[in-house]
Amino acid sequence: MSATASRKRVYDFAEGSRDMRMLLGGKGANVAEMTRLGLPVPGGFTITTRACIDYLSADHTMPPGLGDEITRHLQSLEARTGKRLGDADDPLLVSVRSGAPESMPGMMDTVLNLGLNDASVRGLAARTRNPRFAYDSYRRFIQMFADVVEGVERSLFEDALSDLKAARGVTQDVELEADDLLELVATYKAIFRENKGEDFPQEPRTQLDASIRAVFESWDNRRARDYRRVNRIPDDLGTGVNVQQMVFGNTGPRSATGVAFTRNNTTGEAGEPFGEFLINAQGEDVVAGIRTPEPLAQLRAHLPEAYDQLVATMALLEKTYRNMQDVEFTIEEGQLYMLQTRNGMRSAEAMLRIAVEMVDEGLLAPGEAMTSLVVADQVRQLLLPRLDLSGAPVPAAHGVRASPGAACGIVVFSSDEAERRGRAGESVILVRDETTPDDFHGMVAAKGILTARGGKTSHAAIVAVGMGTPAVTGVTDLHVDEADGCLRIRDEFTVREGEYVTIDGASGTVYVGQLPLLPPDPHNRYLERVLSWADAFRTMKVRTNADTPEDARRAREFGAEGIGLCRTEHMFGGEDRLPHVQDMIMATNHRDLVLALDVLRGFQIADFIGIFDAMEGLPVTIRLLDPPLHEFLPDYTDLRVRLARAEITGTPDPEAESQLPNVERLQEVNPMLGTRGCRLGIEIPDLYRMQVAAILTAACEVKKRTGVAPIVEIMIPLVGFEDELRWLRDHVLDVAESVFTDQGTRVEYHVGTMIELPRAALVADEIARQADFFSFGTNDLTQTTLGFSRDDAETKFLGDYLGKGILRSNPFEHIDQAGVGKLVRMACESARKVKPKIKLGVCGEHGGDPDSIRFFGSIGLDYVSCSPYRVQTARIAAAQAALQGSRG
Amino acid sequence: MSATASRKRVYDFAEGSRDMRMLLGGKGANVAEMTRLGLPVPGGFTITTRACIDYLSADHTMPPGLGDEITRHLQSLEARTGKRLGDADDPLLVSVRSGAPESMPGMMDTVLNLGLNDASVRGLAARTRNPRFAYDSYRRFIQMFADVVEGVERSLFEDALSDLKAARGVTQDVELEADDLLELVATYKAIFRENKGEDFPQEPRTQLDASIRAVFESWDNRRARDYRRVNRIPDDLGTGVNVQQMVFGNTGPRSATGVAFTRNNTTGEAGEPFGEFLINAQGEDVVAGIRTPEPLAQLRAHLPEAYDQLVATMALLEKTYRNMQDVEFTIEEGQLYMLQTRNGMRSAEAMLRIAVEMVDEGLLAPGEAMTSLVVADQVRQLLLPRLDLSGAPVPAAHGVRASPGAACGIVVFSSDEAERRGRAGESVILVRDETTPDDFHGMVAAKGILTARGGKTSHAAIVAVGMGTPAVTGVTDLHVDEADGCLRIRDEFTVREGEYVTIDGASGTVYVGQLPLLPPDPHNRYLERVLSWADAFRTMKVRTNADTPEDARRAREFGAEGIGLCRTEHMFGGEDRLPHVQDMIMATNHRDLVLALDVLRGFQIADFIGIFDAMEGLPVTIRLLDPPLHEFLPDYTDLRVRLARAEITGTPDPEAESQLPNVERLQEVNPMLGTRGCRLGIEIPDLYRMQVAAILTAACEVKKRTGVAPIVEIMIPLVGFEDELRWLRDHVLDVAESVFTDQGTRVEYHVGTMIELPRAALVADEIARQADFFSFGTNDLTQTTLGFSRDDAETKFLGDYLGKGILRSNPFEHIDQAGVGKLVRMACESARKVKPKIKLGVCGEHGGDPDSIRFFGSIGLDYVSCSPYRVQTARIAAAQAALQGSRG
Repeated sequence: MSATASRKRVYDFAEGSRDMRMLLGGKGANVAEMTRLGLPVPGGFTITTRACIDYLSADHTMPPGLGDEITRHLQSLEARTGKRLGDADDPLLVSVRSGAPESMPGMMDTVLNLGLNDASVRGLAARTRNPRFAYDSYRRFIQMFADVVEGVERSLFEDALSDLKAARGVTQDVELEADDLLELVATYKAIFRENKGEDFPQEPRTQLDASIRAVFESWDNRRARDYRRVNRIPDDLGTGVNVQQMVFGNTGPRSATGVAFTRNNTTGEAGEPFGEFLINAQGEDVVAGIRTPEPLAQLRAHLPEAYDQLVATMALLEKTYRNMQDVEFTIEEGQLYMLQTRNGMRSAEAMLRIAVEMVDEGLLAPGEAMTSLVVADQVRQLLLPRLDLSGAPVPAAHGVRASPGAACGIVVFSSDEAERRGRAGESVILVRDETTPDDFHGMVAAKGILTARGGKTSHAAIVAVGMGTPAVTGVTDLHVDEADGCLRIRDEFTVREGEYVTIDGASGTVYVGQLPLLPPDPHNRYLERVLSWADAFRTMKVRTNADTPEDARRAREFGAEGIGLCRTEHMFGGEDRLPHVQDMIMATNHRDLVLALDVLRGFQIADFIGIFDAMEGLPVTIRLLDPPLHEFLPDYTDLRVRLARAEITGTPDPEAESQLPNVERLQEVNPMLGTRGCRLGIEIPDLYRMQVAAILTAACEVKKRTGVAPIVEIMIPLVGFEDELRWLRDHVLDVAESVFTDQGTRVEYHVGTMIELPRAALVADEIARQADFFSFGTNDLTQTTLGFSRDDAETKFLGDYLGKGILRSNPFEHIDQAGVGKLVRMACESARKVKPKIKLGVCGEHGGDPDSIRFFGSIGLDYVSCSPYRVQTARIAAAQAALQGSRG
Repeated sequence: MSATASRKRVYDFAEGSRDMRMLLGGKGANVAEMTRLGLPVPGGFTITTRACIDYLSADHTMPPGLGDEITRHLQSLEARTGKRLGDADDPLLVSVRSGAPESMPGMMDTVLNLGLNDASVRGLAARTRNPRFAYDSYRRFIQMFADVVEGVERSLFEDALSDLKAARGVTQDVELEADDLLELVATYKAIFRENKGEDFPQEPRTQLDASIRAVFESWDNRRARDYRRVNRIPDDLGTGVNVQQMVFGNTGPRSATGVAFTRNNTTGEAGEPFGEFLINAQGEDVVAGIRTPEPLAQLRAHLPEAYDQLVATMALLEKTYRNMQDVEFTIEEGQLYMLQTRNGMRSAEAMLRIAVEMVDEGLLAPGEAMTSLVVADQVRQLLLPRLDLSGAPVPAAHGVRASPGAACGIVVFSSDEAERRGRAGESVILVRDETTPDDFHGMVAAKGILTARGGKTSHAAIVAVGMGTPAVTGVTDLHVDEADGCLRIRDEFTVREGEYVTIDGASGTVYVGQLPLLPPDPHNRYLERVLSWADAFRTMKVRTNADTPEDARRAREFGAEGIGLCRTEHMFGGEDRLPHVQDMIMATNHRDLVLALDVLRGFQIADFIGIFDAMEGLPVTIRLLDPPLHEFLPDYTDLRVRLARAEITGTPDPEAESQLPNVERLQEVNPMLGTRGCRLGIEIPDLYRMQVAAILTAACEVKKRTGVAPIVEIMIPLVGFEDELRWLRDHVLDVAESVFTDQGTRVEYHVGTMIELPRAALVADEIARQADFFSFGTNDLTQTTLGFSRDDAETKFLGDYLGKGILRSNPFEHIDQAGVGKLVRMACESARKVKPKIKLGVCGEHGGDPDSIRFFGSIGLDYVSCSPYRVQTARIAAAQAALQGSRG
């Protein structure tokens, strides 16, 4: 008890600093910092986050000694201000606000105007000569205290207010007089008494203690817990409680309140501060939007001294924090008060421009700007069309921000129609209740995707993000009436197939009609600067996942240094190849098999020549065929239905008859864990031999034609046992020699494997003996390590898990470091023990996720590979990983 | 080179001992041991296994210096025998035989009668006064050398022999005269010259060197490699080469040859040695079965001195080896020679009786007998009916020994019929081309299973082994003609439905008709003795996997000390429950869900009371519902076909219509990795709450009625994240308190989880914080770690992998120690760090596999759990694990 009792739990604002964010919370630390800088901050003190945790873990009882500490700090505040809490003559009013180490906007509770009671309200009225203001403050305090601290239904107060306005025949709160408000105070106190069985507390210290408890409790409320889970904030941080003297921007025309950014938060432009204010108003009024605020520059005309002081203060804050600041201020009777400063939210464009200009201004070194000002993931927004909001359009509905970017097009309700119209060159928005894998072709053809159901992990969202297609999902107001060929939004809008909608995936908004879009800007000059820093800092290479020459070229424009994953199965699905693939599968003897493979070899050589040409001598990792063969045959159920139909109608269906036995033979209970990857190559060695021959023939031909030899990396998928790779590697070497003899030339090639099974990671030392490189296939490794079938998890239980807080993020987006990451780390360590120079990379989708990239950097991978649109993001994240590593 | 040259590579028989098996091979070590014991062993020397490996790894060239070493040992042998290799007057003949550290019967090569040439054959003829014998030996030598060493087609020689017999008008080899054989020698030499382009080598040292090389080479032949893969013998052991003076049992009536066991290898009875012999014969003749050998006891009458010497020798060998021996001997002109001794193969009965009696004779201590004489897996044979072969029945066909035991019954061709007739009390053999999961009910009802296709890893085999049902699979001669209601075996047998067949799974044989069976003998008194030793030695407990009171009772008879896995899903599938399970699944609101669960609760309470009663206070681990819910609904494809049919025929199918949306909703791409296990419990908390309430209610009621409180272990399946278990554990505790209040009493209960996902093993320390116990579900852990869907692997690629030697054993039978085993070991270590007393067990099928049990013992698990029929095996294997551990 002595250790607990002796611990300091309350800090005067003058005692803290911005480095004490963990102990004081963000708000407390920043207010302390401003106090330390000598800025005009209303006095007060902060109760530590540790006190909050102590309170919660001691069965919600106040830590011993805390009351006395508060008393001392309160007395000191009263002494400095010359006012006393609850004083009938010149009362001190305080606010009680939460403030956690990580920003959790709006999640926790706040009480304003604390210290008012039946006596002090009269003192306030007299002192301010503004009884209306005093009684309005009191009735607000009663309502806020009753709601936040005592849990009395807020609507009871709102109804009483409405009743009073009706009785007075007015519509606006401001039309009520001081006497009306005095009457309302009485009504509010009666409501309080009725609901709580006791009188509204008149003793200010009782009010204060109850409010502090309420803030502590709010750390653990459902909303806050959920927010922390979604934002991956630990539960054991706790919140600070800030008790601060109230100042008032609503005492008259020489008072004001406002918010401001030190630079433009949309463009990043420096110069005049950017923000807005209201004369004679309180902070709440700005947020509530009852009156329209004026641009900050206008403040100079109203209150020039306060304005100049604000501008100087903001400049000082920016220099101090070395980051663009977002401040809240109040001016009471001409006197400026700073209430809050924090790093400001900004658009991607602003983020980059601010980083570059702050470096040019000498405020930060590039490395510091990379880590403190650049958010790697935001860069992708520059690659997407944006909505031109200059016309201030009104959204028709809101949904989930499933995939960023804006899109405008005509509505279609089926994937077949999307494909048909898309091919015809029309811009279409595919609208569905929700999408399924059967919609893939329509999603590819669509400019945007809009669904009524599903969140960020829905099929629509995942596929859209993967393709870089804008999407808004989970629009609950949207009703898709396929039968009637239209969509309805509430009862307000009806859009028929062929009419326009516009969606903005970045904000989750839906507009009826055609809105102007701003084109993407991937070669923004600020971005180029930031990327040039990134390339200088990073140690990991960045490759791309690309299956076509077009993707490869696009990725090179974004800076990809090679292909980390070229999947060959997509090459098998083309209309011109599928019949031959089916011949191969259905071959009943070796001759038919070889014939089918011969045809495919021709296609494959052309495929690989295209890719090698696009990559001009950069390394290309090609994965041999991976998916189970039944994916190239019709669906089993469809065949059975066709045959049932044929039987009943007496119309034979010879195609279905011939396909059914093969589909039955290849059917698997769990295709993910079935005959795929290297198991195919071992079962049908001629298949992989054909692919290897095509790859190396293409490489030799490109070398002979262009003089630039491709660097070929042949990747065997799904290896779990050293002997699998040994067996297949022997085949590769054998085929290679025969191709080189035929071609009269040789190319450099390497043989490696994907590490995508837990066993492969566990015996990586054994497998490394047969491998020139490893590429971690973290998608499949996540599926097997967690036992999560991605197809099933994301449409079934994953949403429930995220909702219940059992998972904090989708492990397919951010790598599960404790499980999957541990396997990757173990595999790297054991492989390098056997073969120090083995090349190690990652080609799962995590290769484009900044969080995951930082993890991969920390364990020393040589490269990450990601989709073309994520290459720039990955370059930045790789730099951040390197900077993080060099700082230890 | 000096290290290589100076290494001793040839050992005289007098220089070795039985401890040198790794260096000299089994045969070489045993012959050396017999020499050391002063037994009459023809002289010779052994070339080491290391020389073989050196030869193979030096690109198949003779290690330098080996030739000289052989020369010295050969000269010494010649000096001792007074004969010379190839001598025209008194030639030394030798045999050249392989002998590896692990027995590989018949896999590698042997050359006999080496040293004969055109000159020495005359010397042999003169010395033995038996020209026929000499020329017969010579022609045999030419054929053997040509075949084994030079790869000349054996049939060429056999055809020449047949031609000669035809020309002489005789049918038996022995009817040929010496002159005929002299002519045959000339023919054989001509064949050799024709095929090899050179003369048959006359120089004995050339013959010898070539034969030694051939034995070295035979280590690497396909057959030997395959054998090693199947029997998990390492490839780098190499074979020894034994060069030994020939002795002849075929020189006349005072000569003989035979094989013998020191005890009866079928019954284990001690007393007179047990074996057979032929007068005036060579070893080959015994094997070839041309003449019928006589029982060994008859030898006393023929050659009493040699017989007495043999009996004394065998007694000495048994004492020396402290194990039942299998010897080969030859008597040449009354003189006994011992050619080989080794531990003898024996039946399960003999194994146990020999172990017990050798301990009683003071030959070994029980612990030694446990490790050196008892093979845990063989014990299961005692639990199965055996075929009474006293009538010497003739098999109709042979197949794969899929599941041991014999069965006799009437043939049925469908599982429905098997179930119908089985219920009616008939003994049925289910005959199918191959079985599928749909046949499960028929397999349960059948006394035996017979299939035309599939090996040891086929569905039929796996299920049969699991149920302890005899099975023969992969009978290629079997044709199942369902349409005609009969089976055919080649063109010889036709068996109609309802007629009898008998199968013997231990030998893979099929008999037409009804054969007598011998009943199983689980309470064999020798077994009881061995088990009592086992229980004294072992440190791991042995539990059983049992879902019914019947299984539980049976397992207790076999010595189970608790239930390690009681699966509740089987309880849901019963006809009386399924409609309510479907109601639960299809419930669209909470009220319907609760109603369905209320009905199920009643059934479950009765289920658990039955189990607790059977276990009388022993611990019972009950796993909450695990499989995906669609398993309780009709098949998706069937529904779609039904609805297509309904649509075309215009006959509505309301049942299918109502079920389809639910089946569609629950359908999963990879059910193994889908919504099952604890994911169900989290999605539908009421389901697990119902099960927990039923379990604890049953436990309280049993306690109140019997006074004996069950020890309840509630097991949450498929946990991968600590928060899953925390969330569900909270529900369990909550339900428990309310049950105990209702019941007015409490029972001891624990909450734990199955570790069956790689992630769970990787973060076992985190999960351990929420768990009282872990049970490793190594079946599923194998599926996810290896990415092998068991359903798919065993019917698809696993056979190919085993055939190609990529896998050496089925990882579902023997735990994959390097991968899955590593995870289990890591999990145990990290869990115990957090919670030293956590109870750790295994309930996968590996819990009944002796190899795996020894592994589990080595990492310190507290118990294994296996099917009832494997409990005795597991008790013995656990003892062996403990003895192995105590020896370090």
